[in-house]
Amino acid sequence: MPDPSSLALPHVATLHAYTPGIQPTEPGWVKLNTNECPYPPSPRVAEAIRQELGEDGAALRLYPNPKSVPLRAAVAALHGLDVANVCIGNGSDDILTMLVRAFCSDASPLGFTVPSYSLYPVLVEIQDGRAEAIELDRSMRLPVERIRTSTARAFVLTSPNAPTGVGFSNAELERALDGYEGLFVVDEAYAAFAREDAVPLLARHRNVVVVRTLSKAYALAGIRVGYALADAALIDVLDRVRDSYNVSRLSQVAARAAIEDHAYFLSLVARVTATRDAFVADLTDRRHWFTYPSQANFVFTEPVNARGERGPAVAAAAYEYLRARKVLVRYFPNHPLTAAFLRISVGTDDEMAILRDTLDAWHSAT
Amino acid sequence: MPDPSSLALPHVATLHAYTPGIQPTEPGWVKLNTNECPYPPSPRVAEAIRQELGEDGAALRLYPNPKSVPLRAAVAALHGLDVANVCIGNGSDDILTMLVRAFCSDASPLGFTVPSYSLYPVLVEIQDGRAEAIELDRSMRLPVERIRTSTARAFVLTSPNAPTGVGFSNAELERALDGYEGLFVVDEAYAAFAREDAVPLLARHRNVVVVRTLSKAYALAGIRVGYALADAALIDVLDRVRDSYNVSRLSQVAARAAIEDHAYFLSLVARVTATRDAFVADLTDRRHWFTYPSQANFVFTEPVNARGERGPAVAAAAYEYLRARKVLVRYFPNHPLTAAFLRISVGTDDEMAILRDTLDAWHSAT
Repeated sequence: MPDPSSLALPHVATLHAYTPGIQPTEPGWVKLNTNECPYPPSPRVAEAIRQELGEDGAALRLYPNPKSVPLRAAVAALHGLDVANVCIGNGSDDILTMLVRAFCSDASPLGFTVPSYSLYPVLVEIQDGRAEAIELDRSMRLPVERIRTSTARAFVLTSPNAPTGVGFSNAELERALDGYEGLFVVDEAYAAFAREDAVPLLARHRNVVVVRTLSKAYALAGIRVGYALADAALIDVLDRVRDSYNVSRLSQVAARAAIEDHAYFLSLVARVTATRDAFVADLTDRRHWFTYPSQANFVFTEPVNARGERGPAVAAAAYEYLRARKVLVRYFPNHPLTAAFLRISVGTDDEMAILRDTLDAWHSAT
Repeated sequence: MPDPSSLALPHVATLHAYTPGIQPTEPGWVKLNTNECPYPPSPRVAEAIRQELGEDGAALRLYPNPKSVPLRAAVAALHGLDVANVCIGNGSDDILTMLVRAFCSDASPLGFTVPSYSLYPVLVEIQDGRAEAIELDRSMRLPVERIRTSTARAFVLTSPNAPTGVGFSNAELERALDGYEGLFVVDEAYAAFAREDAVPLLARHRNVVVVRTLSKAYALAGIRVGYALADAALIDVLDRVRDSYNVSRLSQVAARAAIEDHAYFLSLVARVTATRDAFVADLTDRRHWFTYPSQANFVFTEPVNARGERGPAVAAAAYEYLRARKVLVRYFPNHPLTAAFLRISVGTDDEMAILRDTLDAWHSAT
């Protein structure tokens, strides 16, 4: 019998799988590499899960609500929309998969900027579809004209962008929307930390989809819940390609509890943004490292060593120095616009102090 | 702005979404329609979830293990395989989606029998792929010759079959495998209730994939965990199209706890099969209804009314009579081989007594 993997479709045999950030299983790491929240979720989350479990977990024997209706109602209420405008995903990656499956093929390209979330080209490859990459320049500004004139059937914008943290205003988005007739997906994983979000655009542009996750600002990366907000006709399209039971019972109740505790959510965001802003000030004012203004829960900065050098080798050296001391950040060597930078998630103040001291030690050692 | 759903790919605009069984949200139903287990899961499941939660749910802020390694190790140990032979899905439907995405296209058909699990043609439609349906006859026996000579790149067999409950022996499967060179997927959602399972075939046939779920025999439909067992090269293919974080932290620990409590699992299976066999005896010996021999946790039976009539109208009448009395079973009117039957999940003995009495009342009323 020959190797059975040779039966896979040709494009699957050659595709480059997405590489998630390292998730260490042993303790002792200062983990600033995957933009998780450094604080626990709302206490109502554990309470809601315990209630769903009951004494013996009997509720788990039954399938979840296939359309996540109570959770969708909570999301709709949060954004002043209708249940019909909400689709729940097994993480926002599930939403992105649905969008690619419904709108992208070899004849219908998916547009996105480079750099942005590196999952998009992987999803296009899995779909055997066509990608239309719009390269940014070092300014990292929105290429409004290129989006307006794009012929991609769907365009997905990470906003604020990753891994830069740069935010885009609704005024900029609307200039791009004025002329672009495809589906305009605003992937707002980090919108909670930004000055503006694209939800108000939904009322004026039926072709806009806003994608959110509970992994970052709600401190719930472990439960895998994200959602799409869009015109009801678009939600209906997503539902056609969605797995019927894509969100577990426990994730549904956990997400709902987190969303309904809005005061706690705001307090998490306030703590993270305060730490972020102090960290950015340290990078720019004390170290004089070039750092993009961040509207996210991470910071993208260009390390400079004691000899005043910067660039890919310097960033790689800083990354390895930190990693050897159990401080984990993210390094993206595969693109000229990112290879000289480190992406550092905002942790607790104590974690950021360890990071700062370790970066000081690296600087002294170079 | 025109209806934005017109931007969806043409095949998505016309596809027929999968219809899951009704999941009532209000209490008071005797729910025998989606093959859930009538008993709670192992008490270790709730315990493991509580432990993962801790006091404040802090672990939920972190992403899950992207490759579900501890859970895969438990599954591998259960079946005497290696971790590299196991892929975990967000329910077995997620595994089926991965298989379709990796092996099915418009040039590479997916084969399956009709009737069988009605999700397969939907997954093929979402993929814009080609289906090769092999029609069974009323005997519901395995069409060995037609599988052997099939040119489908992948063939998926529900075994025991749904909605009939008919089991296939490994000897039969091997006769089909002798000559079929595509991927042979054995979807064993109900194998725990059968006399044989296909896991031993993995050692002899590199092109076999066994698919399992925790939704039925483990009483965990609510947590969405299923898995594939296969050659490591095939698992690698599935991993390329798998979402990186497809299984939540809580689902991973819950599934592991259930699998490691093998004695409890066996006790669940024993209770369900005892109730099933008593129910089948009642249908055949007392009512003289034609009923397929069931190797699953449900029974497929052809109702006969007081006038001795059977057929689609009779089955529909029985279904509606039961439903009006809050007894929910499943009815598949869309195929001549299924339209005269009801599929009834095995509940508790008390639930089966209510069902029996309600069927008696229906019979008297006709």
